[in-house]
Amino acid sequence: MHFVGRSWLLLTGFILFYVIYLLFGALVFSSIERPMEDRMRTELEVLKQEFLNLSCVSDAALERFLLKVLAANKYGVSVLRNASTTSNWDLASSMFFANTLVTTVGYGHTTPLSDTGKSFSILYALIGVPFTMLVLTACVQRIMFPLVLAPVGLLQRSGLEPRPATIVHFLLLLILVVMCFFVAPAAVFSTVELSWSFLDGIYFCFISLCTIGLGDFVPGTQPNQQYRSLYQVAVMVYLFVGLMVMFLLLRTFHKMADLHGLTTFLQLPRCEESDLEEDREPMVEVGHKDLTEKEATKPLEPGSQPSYNTMNTG
Amino acid sequence: MHFVGRSWLLLTGFILFYVIYLLFGALVFSSIERPMEDRMRTELEVLKQEFLNLSCVSDAALERFLLKVLAANKYGVSVLRNASTTSNWDLASSMFFANTLVTTVGYGHTTPLSDTGKSFSILYALIGVPFTMLVLTACVQRIMFPLVLAPVGLLQRSGLEPRPATIVHFLLLLILVVMCFFVAPAAVFSTVELSWSFLDGIYFCFISLCTIGLGDFVPGTQPNQQYRSLYQVAVMVYLFVGLMVMFLLLRTFHKMADLHGLTTFLQLPRCEESDLEEDREPMVEVGHKDLTEKEATKPLEPGSQPSYNTMNTG
Repeated sequence: MHFVGRSWLLLTGFILFYVIYLLFGALVFSSIERPMEDRMRTELEVLKQEFLNLSCVSDAALERFLLKVLAANKYGVSVLRNASTTSNWDLASSMFFANTLVTTVGYGHTTPLSDTGKSFSILYALIGVPFTMLVLTACVQRIMFPLVLAPVGLLQRSGLEPRPATIVHFLLLLILVVMCFFVAPAAVFSTVELSWSFLDGIYFCFISLCTIGLGDFVPGTQPNQQYRSLYQVAVMVYLFVGLMVMFLLLRTFHKMADLHGLTTFLQLPRCEESDLEEDREPMVEVGHKDLTEKEATKPLEPGSQPSYNTMNTG
Repeated sequence: MHFVGRSWLLLTGFILFYVIYLLFGALVFSSIERPMEDRMRTELEVLKQEFLNLSCVSDAALERFLLKVLAANKYGVSVLRNASTTSNWDLASSMFFANTLVTTVGYGHTTPLSDTGKSFSILYALIGVPFTMLVLTACVQRIMFPLVLAPVGLLQRSGLEPRPATIVHFLLLLILVVMCFFVAPAAVFSTVELSWSFLDGIYFCFISLCTIGLGDFVPGTQPNQQYRSLYQVAVMVYLFVGLMVMFLLLRTFHKMADLHGLTTFLQLPRCEESDLEEDREPMVEVGHKDLTEKEATKPLEPGSQPSYNTMNTG
């Protein structure tokens, strides 16, 4: 029970620290980027008024004006009237940006304008990305038993062989994930976001949860969005849980591939079997020196599982 | 030697298939998206001419015009005169897009316009992303020996203890990677791209190799870029090799963390030790049923490495 308590405490600590880290990032980004954004917005407004006051619009004048408009748009500052009321760097938006940074989704609908902002982004991601992976891994380990090991055990007790059981379980899990993390959110997004079709919703969910994050569809960016901050926090939670489930799916697939000999066949590393860990020698006592020497002298047996490392020395 | 030959063959096959997959994606994206882009570009041109022919520019007319301009810009179609000569969906650009999709970098400087393009993107990434991870993993396994195992062995033979040896090696590798994959490319980018500073170059390299891919800086998008296609292919190669090195760095760090007991301390999965693999029981013979039963009955010993899975059943 001591370990159970400690592991929960550790996980809670991780998640708490993660939220604090996001809030901290949000505050810094907001304080660095907001003044830059305000200045750009004011400049653009002045430019637009000057442009409108021209007695005759020349090709060159329009070109100059559009150049500025598009440059500002690149940083999320829109020239349009109804879009200019909200900042891209209020607290919720900054936190949303920080979140897309550490999860490596990176929509790029808003990007840091200043050199300080860019430098801070690098530093922030340098710590944030590995830490997010760590939190996600810790969470996935926690849900592996109820969502993978227990159901597979149940399927086997109901008479299925180990291999078919893992396939049936993986397919069921896949259907569940597609329904809960793609179809349902897509339906919600296509309702909330006025210009999104259902396909756009699916496309957004997929592009986000694969961490591609093209940024052509970003929730909560339409003008006059009600409860924007709350909505952005909800999307952040969706992204986090979604990524966790994607990690789980990947690990389940990896375990299944191991069981079916696929990873061995393709000479790839096998999935880390944490449930086998007790039986393995601790790494510390083995030491790299013994390893490399053992490899160099040990002949490759046909029955052994070959790896690229041993092959080089053989 | 049989295994050595087979592993090289497999790796070559992987990389060959990867290149073919990218080319195939490029062809499909190009054929789907280019007509859409051309139509949008023509429309925008007509709109601009109409706007210029207005005797007096009203606020409302400007707003309508800018709305269209920004919408087109979102899809990489610029209203500016000198930017409109090159397509975002020629073969090299399409391949660049396909590459940012499967590596999950996803700059989003160009995004599919059509529903067919979006659907194909989903399907393409669904196969491409796992396949890219597979190719990268296979490549990393191949370079683990010369870049990690051999140098660590060398350091140990020169008198260092295993733990300090891994730290010294990791720091040396880190410096090498930073110099070759961040500083040097940043210098090249800040020379080739007229509007990029050195910091912008570093920022681009970092944001890309973390697969965040904000897309505020994308090489080869400036107008009148010489040898654009060749340049884009070079960036693609840089991205691929860079990601491989990032994977290698991550795995080396993971191995080092194992050795120092950090992963055990944080109750996280340990790095897959492919060089230990021969000694482990094959997964197929163990079977999940035995595993879960063993877990359920086995008491947790203080000396054993606890995992979340075993804790739940204990």
